[in-house]
Amino acid sequence: MAMEDDRSKKDDDFNDTVAEETSVERIFEESGAVPPPWQNQLTIRALVVSFVLSIMFTFVVMKLNLTTGIIPSLNISAGLLGFFFVKTWTKLLHKAGYLKQPFTRQENTVIQTCVVASSGIAFSGGFGSYLFGMSDVVAKQISPEPSPPMTIKNPQLGWMIGFLFVVSFIGLFSVVPLRKIMIVDFKLTYPSGTATAHLINSFHTPQGAKLAKKQVRTLGKFFSFSFLWGFFQWFFTGGDDCGFTAFPTFGLKAYASKFFFDFSSTYVGVGMICSYLINISVLLGAILSWGVMWPLIGAQKGKWYSSEIPASSLHGLQGYRVFIAIAMILGDGIYSFIKVLFNTLLFYLCSFQHSFVLPVDDRSPSFPSVSFDDKRRTELFLKDGIPAWFAVGGYVIFSAISIIAVPFIFPQLRWYYILVMYLIAPILAFCNAFGCGLTDWSLASNYGKIAIFAIGAWAGASNGGIIAGLAACGVIMNIVSTASDLMQDFKTGYLTLASPRSMFISQVIGTAMGCLISPSVFWLFYTAFDGFGQSGSAYPAPFALVYRNMSILGVEGFSTLPKHCLMLCYIFFGGSFAVNGLRDAVGPKWSRFIPLPMAMAIPFYLGGYFAVDMCVGSLILFIWRKVNKPNADAFSPAVASGLICGDGIWTLPNSILALAGVKPPICMKFLSSSDNVRVDDFLNSS
Amino acid sequence: MAMEDDRSKKDDDFNDTVAEETSVERIFEESGAVPPPWQNQLTIRALVVSFVLSIMFTFVVMKLNLTTGIIPSLNISAGLLGFFFVKTWTKLLHKAGYLKQPFTRQENTVIQTCVVASSGIAFSGGFGSYLFGMSDVVAKQISPEPSPPMTIKNPQLGWMIGFLFVVSFIGLFSVVPLRKIMIVDFKLTYPSGTATAHLINSFHTPQGAKLAKKQVRTLGKFFSFSFLWGFFQWFFTGGDDCGFTAFPTFGLKAYASKFFFDFSSTYVGVGMICSYLINISVLLGAILSWGVMWPLIGAQKGKWYSSEIPASSLHGLQGYRVFIAIAMILGDGIYSFIKVLFNTLLFYLCSFQHSFVLPVDDRSPSFPSVSFDDKRRTELFLKDGIPAWFAVGGYVIFSAISIIAVPFIFPQLRWYYILVMYLIAPILAFCNAFGCGLTDWSLASNYGKIAIFAIGAWAGASNGGIIAGLAACGVIMNIVSTASDLMQDFKTGYLTLASPRSMFISQVIGTAMGCLISPSVFWLFYTAFDGFGQSGSAYPAPFALVYRNMSILGVEGFSTLPKHCLMLCYIFFGGSFAVNGLRDAVGPKWSRFIPLPMAMAIPFYLGGYFAVDMCVGSLILFIWRKVNKPNADAFSPAVASGLICGDGIWTLPNSILALAGVKPPICMKFLSSSDNVRVDDFLNSS
Repeated sequence: MAMEDDRSKKDDDFNDTVAEETSVERIFEESGAVPPPWQNQLTIRALVVSFVLSIMFTFVVMKLNLTTGIIPSLNISAGLLGFFFVKTWTKLLHKAGYLKQPFTRQENTVIQTCVVASSGIAFSGGFGSYLFGMSDVVAKQISPEPSPPMTIKNPQLGWMIGFLFVVSFIGLFSVVPLRKIMIVDFKLTYPSGTATAHLINSFHTPQGAKLAKKQVRTLGKFFSFSFLWGFFQWFFTGGDDCGFTAFPTFGLKAYASKFFFDFSSTYVGVGMICSYLINISVLLGAILSWGVMWPLIGAQKGKWYSSEIPASSLHGLQGYRVFIAIAMILGDGIYSFIKVLFNTLLFYLCSFQHSFVLPVDDRSPSFPSVSFDDKRRTELFLKDGIPAWFAVGGYVIFSAISIIAVPFIFPQLRWYYILVMYLIAPILAFCNAFGCGLTDWSLASNYGKIAIFAIGAWAGASNGGIIAGLAACGVIMNIVSTASDLMQDFKTGYLTLASPRSMFISQVIGTAMGCLISPSVFWLFYTAFDGFGQSGSAYPAPFALVYRNMSILGVEGFSTLPKHCLMLCYIFFGGSFAVNGLRDAVGPKWSRFIPLPMAMAIPFYLGGYFAVDMCVGSLILFIWRKVNKPNADAFSPAVASGLICGDGIWTLPNSILALAGVKPPICMKFLSSSDNVRVDDFLNSS
Repeated sequence: MAMEDDRSKKDDDFNDTVAEETSVERIFEESGAVPPPWQNQLTIRALVVSFVLSIMFTFVVMKLNLTTGIIPSLNISAGLLGFFFVKTWTKLLHKAGYLKQPFTRQENTVIQTCVVASSGIAFSGGFGSYLFGMSDVVAKQISPEPSPPMTIKNPQLGWMIGFLFVVSFIGLFSVVPLRKIMIVDFKLTYPSGTATAHLINSFHTPQGAKLAKKQVRTLGKFFSFSFLWGFFQWFFTGGDDCGFTAFPTFGLKAYASKFFFDFSSTYVGVGMICSYLINISVLLGAILSWGVMWPLIGAQKGKWYSSEIPASSLHGLQGYRVFIAIAMILGDGIYSFIKVLFNTLLFYLCSFQHSFVLPVDDRSPSFPSVSFDDKRRTELFLKDGIPAWFAVGGYVIFSAISIIAVPFIFPQLRWYYILVMYLIAPILAFCNAFGCGLTDWSLASNYGKIAIFAIGAWAGASNGGIIAGLAACGVIMNIVSTASDLMQDFKTGYLTLASPRSMFISQVIGTAMGCLISPSVFWLFYTAFDGFGQSGSAYPAPFALVYRNMSILGVEGFSTLPKHCLMLCYIFFGGSFAVNGLRDAVGPKWSRFIPLPMAMAIPFYLGGYFAVDMCVGSLILFIWRKVNKPNADAFSPAVASGLICGDGIWTLPNSILALAGVKPPICMKFLSSSDNVRVDDFLNSS
């Protein structure tokens, strides 16, 4: 879920980095480093490295998308690995005497931008949400009888690539003309972009390079460990509910309520990157839902819902799980939406009134005396322009293509829906890019959810409103998400003296890569794994179900909900809203003890197993910090990235093995002692 | 197996400690520490701590005895824990203002001696070898038809305690008069005793105490981890072949050949204490036997042995396993026996000829000018005498009791057999104590094996020679083993200025404790665990089977062996002899690449799983040493001790749970994928 992604970025790590920045540009100037012209920032080696890393991160993001939907910021690992690859490559060339051009931080920024753009598509492409929510697999989980063809669009490689190509580039053009206002005039913070820039800058100072080398080595170690651990686990998964992912760590009863440690190095790593608050919130959510609410509601079986419907039906207990989660997610989303819009508006108004006094930027008090760094950065940022006619022209042309092409893919989405969306989209894109600059919080998925309800209701059930809503979500999400990504990257480029032109082109290339890589990787998962997308399988794609249900709610209203479910939804929607309000009211000192409703909602449907993993990650980090804080701060992101990426990359050979029909040889099974006696008798007798 | 125990002690650790010792006594004298009179060395708190630690170490040794028979030196953990307990206790008293007497190194030595004496009985009491070899459980594994009652003596708490009491004290009296000759005149090294003394001395210097505190903390951490890990594992062992001890780490096929990592923290710890050579030898033995020989011999099924006999029968493949292992153990044992006797004799002759020039002691070059340390130690060692009449009188009285009492317990062992043994025993005890002083190598179990064959053949099959042989083994082993233990402790006492009198009394008390604790702990294991003593169970007690078979061989000859087995036994006996000869011929530089036959023999019967554990321990130590050698050398013994003791102590609650009939709730089962499909169908249908 995008929001998790972005909230986790708001960790305190980069606040430290921001503070230490004093006169980086002077150091670089003294060392004689001159930024190369923008064409030379876009080297072939950078694009090759970007391509390799893009594939890797797409696997990682896709795996996260399809297992829980919690995606932590992978910027630091992308930065580290990009640096490592090119550095090794240039070192080899240098030794061989072929090195024409040294590795600059501008080139590093290009790689970073390209990789983030490309793997961003794995999220904004909706493979774990709106796109896969159109499929038959998800529809069958909602109601077992066959759905009308109007409401189904099964994944196919062709249309997915086509759709992404026509909707993904528009966002880039929508905000390009505003870059000077946001970066130079308003000096918006863009915490993630700033953090990445500091990381890249630090890599290219001598000490920084030394530390980076150590961090890369740590990352490599944990990458290998995590990969090999994934490999080892594979051998014991020869069947359903087999292997370490079905390990009843706290007993069979807790396992039945989805409380267990599943030995996933990915989520231990995610837990190390996400803040303690997120991890604790997820765990609290799991305890509240699977520990308290579902047993209570389950006791009403036969009264609140028929006892004869299967366990997976949304008309039974599963319905409460999904719809209460949706209510909380929507409550949190709408609250954030209002809050960010309000803040943005307020800031915008205030800054005009006070002629550019910037309350959020920490350098604002010294505004009149522009620092050396600012001067130099602004100078280079404005040197390579991107003409406004180019941006506007690009937007119009791509919109036209999209308006014509998308209805061929989704006949349910009429051309005039798309036209309307593209008329409103630049405003949304601007709002999101601006809000993200202020708060580091991309609301892309919230805009998408609004589109689901708006377009779904407009189209209506009889005209395939379900698919229209989901497709509209895709159109809006892609614009809004790429717009804020681009502006983050411009900020990074601004701070590393990379040219806006090379940034823009790198983003375009990255987006193109993403449009090819992401659907292919998704297709690999989709075809390789049995039970893909089904509740309880290795890849349940939880948000696909959530998005489809939102679309159904938008089109059909609340009639499908089981008894009392609507009331519970109202309560949790309101609760989610209230908790967020409380968090803002008490201020940061106390709000760190108040859980995040969005994070609490995710385990409502999935159960607490990944919450346990994440808390294990938190615990490791907590103890590590107690023992050796500087060491923990320097190396824990590398360890976490290694754990996440190694396990993520293991899914590549894993899916290939699955496609080739190679079954794991052993099933590690967990039976109760009494079942075991029966099984032993059965095995001995036969 | 005792021999493993002692060979592992010959690690290079204490050679370092010996070297650094320069003028310890001067440091202690300057700090004002005066050894208290001997009565004050034997405090009540020391005996209480000894009692607690004795129970703990008896559990550990018993577990090792009954699982593989490999027992590493636990002196360092006993030293660390003894220090820790009393130190904590005195600190508390000191704070409360009640401390009358500070904790001295002499008191520490008393604890050490008492604990080693007491837990030594767990080994020399033969619960994993001769004593349990008399039982029906072991006899049934050799031939399934009921054995004549003459050849069976099932364990019972009463007679075991009685037997140990009458045979265990004699050894102490047998060598007491010789302590001056061995310790002061010959200055024998007693590497284990010396190492322990250095450890204790170091604890009582200020820096040493600091390091010891850190080591104790490390030990505590790994102790807790190992205990909790044992506890965690327990939950998943609800049935045969369930849980981590049945984890087919390298696949089901390798598991069938007993190659797997069984996650036993005990044997990982044992691997860290034993030398690399022992661990590699065990692994090589496992590969040679279960990887090569048993498959080859198994292919002759129907030709070499009937294909209809059950897998566990000694007339089939199991026979080859057991008898070839016995042949190797005997070959190694007899070689060592001859070698040590020869060396002892040579040394004895030479030292008289050269008037006390001592080739083995590293301080010999400076012999004429006696060092300060030596002078002070000798002075105190000779101050508190033990009169010769006391020793001789004690030996005669205890022999008389034994000659009268033992035939009541084992009517098969006539009183005149015992008389003859007690006439020869002092010579054997002296030889063993002397050899142990030279080489750190107790040959107690070898003397015991000779007794099995000698007395067994004398008694003959019709007069219950099997039991007579095993009981005779017990009589001899107890004398010989306690004699060398006592002399080791005298050496420790000599180096820590502890009085010989307090040492002797501490040893007597420790032995008495051991005679009560060891049978009780064994009884707990025996009654608590299902399938106790049976091949393939958690406690197979491998050497019980080996000892009983040796006794049968001694009484009945080779008639019971399957086809070609005798020839193979000859080959392996000769090979074992030859390899040992080669090891001695090439010298220490190359001998560290030649495996130890005794270590190779153990997995012949048991399989390679514990070899894998031990090699994991070796690997951890190897990497640790590569990364940080001083750290590894300082803390690896503490880590290993923690791992061994924690898991060992877990067997206490584990056996209590078993006695209370509490079954583990879950079975972690490993099925092939095809079996899993059938099991799933079966579980779903029923």
